[in-house]
Amino acid sequence: MRTLFNAEMADLAEDLVGMARHVETAITKASEAILTGNLDAAQQVIAEDEQLDDLETQVDERCVLLIAQQQPVGLDLRTIISALRISAALERMGDLAAHIAKDVRRSYPESPVPDSHREIIEGMCAAATEAAGEIIRLLETRDLNVAAAIVEDDDTLDALHERAYKSLTDGTYTGSPQNTLDVALLARYFERFGDHAVGISRRIVYLVTGDHSGSDAKI
Amino acid sequence: MRTLFNAEMADLAEDLVGMARHVETAITKASEAILTGNLDAAQQVIAEDEQLDDLETQVDERCVLLIAQQQPVGLDLRTIISALRISAALERMGDLAAHIAKDVRRSYPESPVPDSHREIIEGMCAAATEAAGEIIRLLETRDLNVAAAIVEDDDTLDALHERAYKSLTDGTYTGSPQNTLDVALLARYFERFGDHAVGISRRIVYLVTGDHSGSDAKI
Repeated sequence: MRTLFNAEMADLAEDLVGMARHVETAITKASEAILTGNLDAAQQVIAEDEQLDDLETQVDERCVLLIAQQQPVGLDLRTIISALRISAALERMGDLAAHIAKDVRRSYPESPVPDSHREIIEGMCAAATEAAGEIIRLLETRDLNVAAAIVEDDDTLDALHERAYKSLTDGTYTGSPQNTLDVALLARYFERFGDHAVGISRRIVYLVTGDHSGSDAKI
Repeated sequence: MRTLFNAEMADLAEDLVGMARHVETAITKASEAILTGNLDAAQQVIAEDEQLDDLETQVDERCVLLIAQQQPVGLDLRTIISALRISAALERMGDLAAHIAKDVRRSYPESPVPDSHREIIEGMCAAATEAAGEIIRLLETRDLNVAAAIVEDDDTLDALHERAYKSLTDGTYTGSPQNTLDVALLARYFERFGDHAVGISRRIVYLVTGDHSGSDAKI
């Protein structure tokens, strides 16, 4: 029974890594779409988001079955509950990548990023893509240094988000309302992406160390 | 044992209703703050958001203990898992009300809502406040008519959200970038608030009817 349980817990962990790989692909392609105007890449992100929704349902079902059949307690139970939270956060990260891709599609063949904000959005693409890769590594290795790197990437995203908003509202910005809307929403999507990454990382840190002090970043 | 379990399930349901009441108060006060420029109301929403975070932690702990001690299966287990999802959504709805209140505080004594968009934001305040009240009634009564009313309010929020964006980007809008940013973000906060309300309502409909067809609104 225990061996079966361990195998099923390993499958659950593998499902989460699969979801995280999907999110990394989505944010990588969404970043490419937004920086190079690649409409195909944007379409792929939008089309493939449904797969991530299906994966989330699969993880949820596995969690419910695991609890019902194996009646886990203690750390096992907390791991399963955390898996439910992590799958919801990964699904939401995929949604945000799809939102970014939809913005590219809407504005095509123009870019949704005005030249004035290209550097900021480039920085956000880089930090978000990095954070997505780190989520995979954290799920695979549970290395706490990786968790710290995710927090750093989120700090970068927060700082760029603030810079984007300030530059729009300091009285000097002369772009169109459409430009303002695009920059505001893109910056917010990336900022929320980072929040979810940190939420996942705190869940994993909690499982590894029992330290729940970072739990203000709810996922 | 069963009586104790039933009492604990009733406590869990009561916790969720308590969270929903908190959310209703938050969005009511945030709406008042935004429509009347009431800074005190805004400060209260921001200050009280922490209580909602604590309530979420309390619900989560109760769910984990219930599962560990009572080893529920079937509908009981699904109810507990849904409670975890619902508490996360309610906590997020509180965050969104606090975001709205922070926007009021930032722009005080000016309103963050330009006259051009006052009617749209009024409509969003009304629909969001209504949806929050319906969540309480749905949790208390499990009346499916209430679930339908929540979907209608969300439709209203989606339509107003679209109207807000269109009016900003149709080439006729002459407000400042700050106005554009404020309207864009406020509309998005209300729209997400509605999404979470529908997500909660679908979870409850699923528990009552077993029908999971609305599960695309993940919470």
